[in-house]
Amino acid sequence: MRPRVAVLVAVFFIGLGFWAPNSFAAADREKLLTEPGIYGTFATFSLDEDWTKQDQATRIVRLAALRGVVGQHREKMAIDLYLMRGLSDHADLMFRVHAAELRDTQQFLVDLQNSVFGKHLKGTGLMHGLTKKPNYVPGFPDQLKTDLKESVEVGPRPYAIVIPIRKSADWWSLDLEKRAAMMREHTEVSLSYIKTVKRKLYHASGLDDLDFITYFETSKLDDFHSLILSLEQIKEFQYLRRFGHPILIGAPKSVDEVIEVLAQ
Amino acid sequence: MRPRVAVLVAVFFIGLGFWAPNSFAAADREKLLTEPGIYGTFATFSLDEDWTKQDQATRIVRLAALRGVVGQHREKMAIDLYLMRGLSDHADLMFRVHAAELRDTQQFLVDLQNSVFGKHLKGTGLMHGLTKKPNYVPGFPDQLKTDLKESVEVGPRPYAIVIPIRKSADWWSLDLEKRAAMMREHTEVSLSYIKTVKRKLYHASGLDDLDFITYFETSKLDDFHSLILSLEQIKEFQYLRRFGHPILIGAPKSVDEVIEVLAQ
Amino acid sequence: MRPRVAVLVAVFFIGLGFWAPNSFAAADREKLLTEPGIYGTFATFSLDEDWTKQDQATRIVRLAALRGVVGQHREKMAIDLYLMRGLSDHADLMFRVHAAELRDTQQFLVDLQNSVFGKHLKGTGLMHGLTKKPNYVPGFPDQLKTDLKESVEVGPRPYAIVIPIRKSADWWSLDLEKRAAMMREHTEVSLSYIKTVKRKLYHASGLDDLDFITYFETSKLDDFHSLILSLEQIKEFQYLRRFGHPILIGAPKSVDEVIEVLAQ
Amino acid sequence: MRPRVAVLVAVFFIGLGFWAPNSFAAADREKLLTEPGIYGTFATFSLDEDWTKQDQATRIVRLAALRGVVGQHREKMAIDLYLMRGLSDHADLMFRVHAAELRDTQQFLVDLQNSVFGKHLKGTGLMHGLTKKPNYVPGFPDQLKTDLKESVEVGPRPYAIVIPIRKSADWWSLDLEKRAAMMREHTEVSLSYIKTVKRKLYHASGLDDLDFITYFETSKLDDFHSLILSLEQIKEFQYLRRFGHPILIGAPKSVDEVIEVLAQ
Amino acid sequence: MRPRVAVLVAVFFIGLGFWAPNSFAAADREKLLTEPGIYGTFATFSLDEDWTKQDQATRIVRLAALRGVVGQHREKMAIDLYLMRGLSDHADLMFRVHAAELRDTQQFLVDLQNSVFGKHLKGTGLMHGLTKKPNYVPGFPDQLKTDLKESVEVGPRPYAIVIPIRKSADWWSLDLEKRAAMMREHTEVSLSYIKTVKRKLYHASGLDDLDFITYFETSKLDDFHSLILSLEQIKEFQYLRRFGHPILIGAPKSVDEVIEVLAQ
Repeated sequence: MRPRVAVLVAVFFIGLGFWAPNSFAAADREKLLTEPGIYGTFATFSLDEDWTKQDQATRIVRLAALRGVVGQHREKMAIDLYLMRGLSDHADLMFRVHAAELRDTQQFLVDLQNSVFGKHLKGTGLMHGLTKKPNYVPGFPDQLKTDLKESVEVGPRPYAIVIPIRKSADWWSLDLEKRAAMMREHTEVSLSYIKTVKRKLYHASGLDDLDFITYFETSKLDDFHSLILSLEQIKEFQYLRRFGHPILIGAPKSVDEVIEVLAQ
Repeated sequence: MRPRVAVLVAVFFIGLGFWAPNSFAAADREKLLTEPGIYGTFATFSLDEDWTKQDQATRIVRLAALRGVVGQHREKMAIDLYLMRGLSDHADLMFRVHAAELRDTQQFLVDLQNSVFGKHLKGTGLMHGLTKKPNYVPGFPDQLKTDLKESVEVGPRPYAIVIPIRKSADWWSLDLEKRAAMMREHTEVSLSYIKTVKRKLYHASGLDDLDFITYFETSKLDDFHSLILSLEQIKEFQYLRRFGHPILIGAPKSVDEVIEVLAQ
Repeated sequence: MRPRVAVLVAVFFIGLGFWAPNSFAAADREKLLTEPGIYGTFATFSLDEDWTKQDQATRIVRLAALRGVVGQHREKMAIDLYLMRGLSDHADLMFRVHAAELRDTQQFLVDLQNSVFGKHLKGTGLMHGLTKKPNYVPGFPDQLKTDLKESVEVGPRPYAIVIPIRKSADWWSLDLEKRAAMMREHTEVSLSYIKTVKRKLYHASGLDDLDFITYFETSKLDDFHSLILSLEQIKEFQYLRRFGHPILIGAPKSVDEVIEVLAQ
Repeated sequence: MRPRVAVLVAVFFIGLGFWAPNSFAAADREKLLTEPGIYGTFATFSLDEDWTKQDQATRIVRLAALRGVVGQHREKMAIDLYLMRGLSDHADLMFRVHAAELRDTQQFLVDLQNSVFGKHLKGTGLMHGLTKKPNYVPGFPDQLKTDLKESVEVGPRPYAIVIPIRKSADWWSLDLEKRAAMMREHTEVSLSYIKTVKRKLYHASGLDDLDFITYFETSKLDDFHSLILSLEQIKEFQYLRRFGHPILIGAPKSVDEVIEVLAQ
Repeated sequence: MRPRVAVLVAVFFIGLGFWAPNSFAAADREKLLTEPGIYGTFATFSLDEDWTKQDQATRIVRLAALRGVVGQHREKMAIDLYLMRGLSDHADLMFRVHAAELRDTQQFLVDLQNSVFGKHLKGTGLMHGLTKKPNYVPGFPDQLKTDLKESVEVGPRPYAIVIPIRKSADWWSLDLEKRAAMMREHTEVSLSYIKTVKRKLYHASGLDDLDFITYFETSKLDDFHSLILSLEQIKEFQYLRRFGHPILIGAPKSVDEVIEVLAQ
C-alpha cells in the first residue's frame, strides 16, 4: 500500500506546484548548522485525536500544508524533522530549527500552527538554545584538539537523541580551571565514540529552564548508550541537576517520509 | 494575505466605533510602570481547540471583543500583550497588567474571560507582584548608583522574558549586610548589560508561590543569555530555590498585531 | 448591563420563593467561626467549558440552584464564597465551610455537585482542617497576650488568602520549649499587622497532606505581603517543608455577588 | 425526593432479580479481613462528565450493573465501598477489595469497568498490599501485647482514611533492633487511640510505589487527627520518605447507599 | 457469554484468513529473549473513551487489526502482551517487544497506532533498554555462579512486574570493586527466590530517563514482595535515585486472551 500513497502524494504536490526543487542554498544550511551565534529550537508535537478520524484524502491535503509551510520558511532557516511516534512517549513529531533570529523561528511555528495541518498539532515541548564557540577546547592539549577534529563516519544515522541539561549551582560556583579539568575528562571519554556518535551543543541558560541542550545522531544506539554510561561515571556528572527529563528520541526523516507515514 | 486581513480588521473596528484614539493619558501609564506600590500581574492563556475551528469572520468578530475589553479598562491600568505561541510551550498569549489595586486587575480578567473572545481562553498561569522602592541600592557606593542610572538603548525590544524566583530559607535567615553584599555583586554583574537588557522587579511573597517576578526586555537575546549565565556564577545564585519553572518568553505586540496573528 | 442582570436575578429568585431572609441564626455562624473543635473545609472549583456555552437565561436558572443548595444547608454550617477567577489560576470559585461534623460538609458538597449548577463544577482542590485552642499562647508573657487581644479594623476586607503549610520532620522532633520560643517570635512579628490582616488557623495533620491551613483576610494586600516577608525571615520558617503550593487568593463575595458575576 | 428514589431502586432490583440475599458466607469475609496472606486492593474512581448528563432512569439502570458485578464476585472476595465525593478531591468512589489471589481482584475490576456503569468510571488510583503477621509485636513486653488486644468500640465508624507510606533507604539499613525500638514507641503512642480509631496494615513493597498502606476507620476524626499528630512527633517519623500523597478520606457506605447517592 | 465471544472471534479470524499457524520460528524468539545486544521496549497504552462506546461487533473487527499487526511483525521480533487493567492505574495494556534494531520496534508501534484498533490507544509510557552480558557475574565466586544457573520452576507465571531504576551519581562514582561487592550481596539475596521469581535486566542509560529496566514474572506475588523487601535492606538500595515511579504490574496474556477481554 505504501508505494501507492507515495504516488498519490507526488501527484498531489505536482498538481499544487509544490514540487519545486529545494530553492534554499545548501551553503546557508551548512552555515546555520555549523556557525556560532545561531538559535536552535526543538519543538515537539502530538497529533490530536481528530487527525486519525480524517479520511486519507483529507489527511493528504492537510499534509501538503506541512510541506508548504516548511518550504516557505526554508530560505531563512534550516528545518529538520523527526518521527518520534513509536520511539518516544513525549511526542509524535519533532522539528529542529536553526535560525539567526528567534523571531524568524517563531514566525515559522506560528504559520505551522495556523495551517490546516497545524490545527491538528498539540505542542508538547519547546526548547531554545544558542550555538557558541567552544568554551574549554582552546585550553585543551594539542593532541586532544587534533583528536577532536576527527569526524563522524559518513552514512545514514537513523536515530537522534536530545538531552536537556541543567548544571547545579555548585558547578557554576567552581572556578574556571576546575570546570575546565572536568570538561577535559568529559571530552576524553567522549573521544571513543567520535566516529559513530555525532554531537552538537546548544547553550540555553535564560532561554528555557535549562543550561544546555545536547543533541546526538547515530546509527549505533548501543555505542550511544555506552557513551552516556561513560559520562555517568566521571566527576562532572555529579554536578548535573537535570539530565534529560525528558530524553527525546526520534528518527530523522525528510518531509516526504513524514508525510508518507502520517498519510496512512 | 496578511495586508488584506489588516484592512478587514480596520474596517470592522471603525464600523463598531472601536477605532477611537487611545483615550488613557500616557502619563498615567508612565506612572503605573515606574512607581512603587503598583501591582503587576502576569496572566498567560492558551487558545482552546474550538478557536481554530471558527471561520475567519467569526474570529475577527470575537477578536474585536478583546480590543473592546482592553480599551474599556485602559483608563485605570496599563495593559501589555505578548505573543507566546512559537516561543513558549506554556501559553499562546500573555497579559502584563499594572494597577494600583489588584481588584481592578481581577475585574479586567473576569471581563476578558466573560467576553466572546475570552470564552476561547484557558488560563495557564497567573502571578502577582508588587513594585517597591529598591531595598539595597541606597547602601551602594556612589559610582554604582551613578552607573545604575544609565538607561537601556532606545529602539524596539522584540523579546520579553519573565523569570519567577523563590529564594531559599537560608537566604532569608542571612543578616541584611550579607544579603546586601551579594546583591551588590549581582548588580555589578548586571551593569554590563544595562544598555541592551531592560529589567523590572516585582515582589511576590505571599501573593503567589514565589518571592520575586523578574521581567526583561531585549533586542539582543544573546546578551540576555550572557546576563543570566553571569548571574548563575555569583554567590547569590546558590540561594535560589526556584529560578524559572517556567521561564516565560514572548514577543511584545500591540493589540492590533495580536489580532492580526490570531485572525489568520 | 450589570444592573439589568441584577434585576433579572432578583425577579427570578422571588418567583421561585428563594428570596427568603437568611434564616440561620447569626449567633450560630459566630460560634462556628470562633470556637474550637469545628471542621473548616476549603473546596475550590473551576467551571467547565460547557458553562460558557449556555445562554444567560439558562445560566441564571442554574445559578438559582447554587443559591438553593447553600440556603438549604446554612442552618447547620457556615458557608463563605470567594471569587478566585482573575486572582488565581487554581480555581474560579472557593467555598469555605465550617461545620461541627465533616459528614455534614460532605452532604453539602455532594448536594452542590449533584445540582444543575454543580454539574458544571470541576473540583480542583479540597482541604480540611480542625480549629483548636491555641497551643503556645498560654505560655506567652502577659503583655504579648494582651497585645494579641487587639482585633482587626472594622470595614470590608476584599482579599482572602489561603496558605497550606507542612512542617518538617525536624520541627516535630524539637522539644516543646524550642517550638514555643519560635512560635513566640512568629507571634511578635505578626503583631505589627494585627490591625490590617485578620488570621485564622486550622490544624490538618491526617486530614490532608498538610499540617496547617492558614487563612487571611485584608484590605491592604501590601501589608499582607510585608507580613509574609517578615515570617520568611524568622527561624521557624526554616522548618517549613511546604508553604503554599498553592497559595490561594480570592475575593470574598456574597452568593448574590457570585451569581451576578457568573450570570454574565 | 430521596425516599422515592430508594423505592424506585428497590423496585428495579426486584424486577431484575437482583434482590437476592447476600449469598457469601460472613465467616469468609471475616477471614479475608483478619488473616495474613490476603491481598488488599484500594481502587479509586471518578465519574466521567457523561454520567451527570444521563437522566435518572438511565442512571438507575446502570447502577444496577454496579450491584450486579459486586454481587457476582462477593463469594470469592470481600468488597467494601466508600463515598469520596465531598471529602476528597482525588476520587468520587473507592473500592477496598480483599482476596486470596490478586488475579481474582483483577477479574472483578475488569468486569466492573466493562459493565455499563463502569464505562463511566475513570480510574484515579490503584494500590495493592498484602496482609502479614505482625513483624515487631512478638518482641514487645507482655503488658504492651495485652494492651494491644483491646479492640475498637462497637458502633458505626463513618470515616475511613487511607495513608500510603514509603520508608527511607536509611530506615531499611537500620538493624532490626533499632527498628523494633522505634516501632514499639510507635505502638505505645497509638495505644491511646485504640478504642476510637481502628487500624489495619498492608505491606506493599514491590506491588506499588509504596512500602505500606495504612487504613483507618473512626467516628471521631479529631482523635484520628491527634493520633497522626502524635506519630509525627516520634523518631520513626523521620524515616518516612512518603506519608500520604495522597491521604484518601471517604465515608464507608453499603452498595445501596452509594446507589442512592449516585442516582440523584 | 464468554465462550460465545470466543467462537465469534475465531470465526471472524478464520474468515479473514488470520488463523494461520504462528509462522515465526520459535528458535528466533528464544534467541531474542536470551541473547545480549537485543533492544527491549515496554510500551503501555490506555484505551480511549470512544472504545467503550463501540458495539461489540465493531470492537471485534478492530481487535482483528491488533492480531493482524502483531502477526505481521512477529517474524522480526518477539512481542508479548500484558493486561494491566485491574492491576495498574497506569495503563490497560502493555507490549513488551524484543528486536535487534529499535527502528523495527518503531515500525511495529507506528503500524499498531495507525491501525483501526490503534486509533483507540493512548500511549501512557514507552521505555527502551538493551540486553547485555552480565557485568559483575564473571567476578563472582564459583559457588554463586553455579547457584545462579538454577532456573525458575516450570509452569504458568500469571504476574509480570516492571520496575524502572535510576542509580545515583554517587553510585556511578564508586570504583568498580565496591560496586561489584554490593552487586554480589544483591545477587546472594536474590538467590532465595530464583525458583519462583523469573528476572530479566535491560540497560537503559541514554535511551530513557533511567539506568535499568528490571522485569519479573512470578506465580507467587508474596515471594516477589519478599524479594523486593530483601533488596530494600541491602547497601546497594541506598544508591537508587529512582525505584519504580511507576512500578508496572500486569498479567501476561496471549493475543487471543486480550482480544477476548477487550471484546466484552
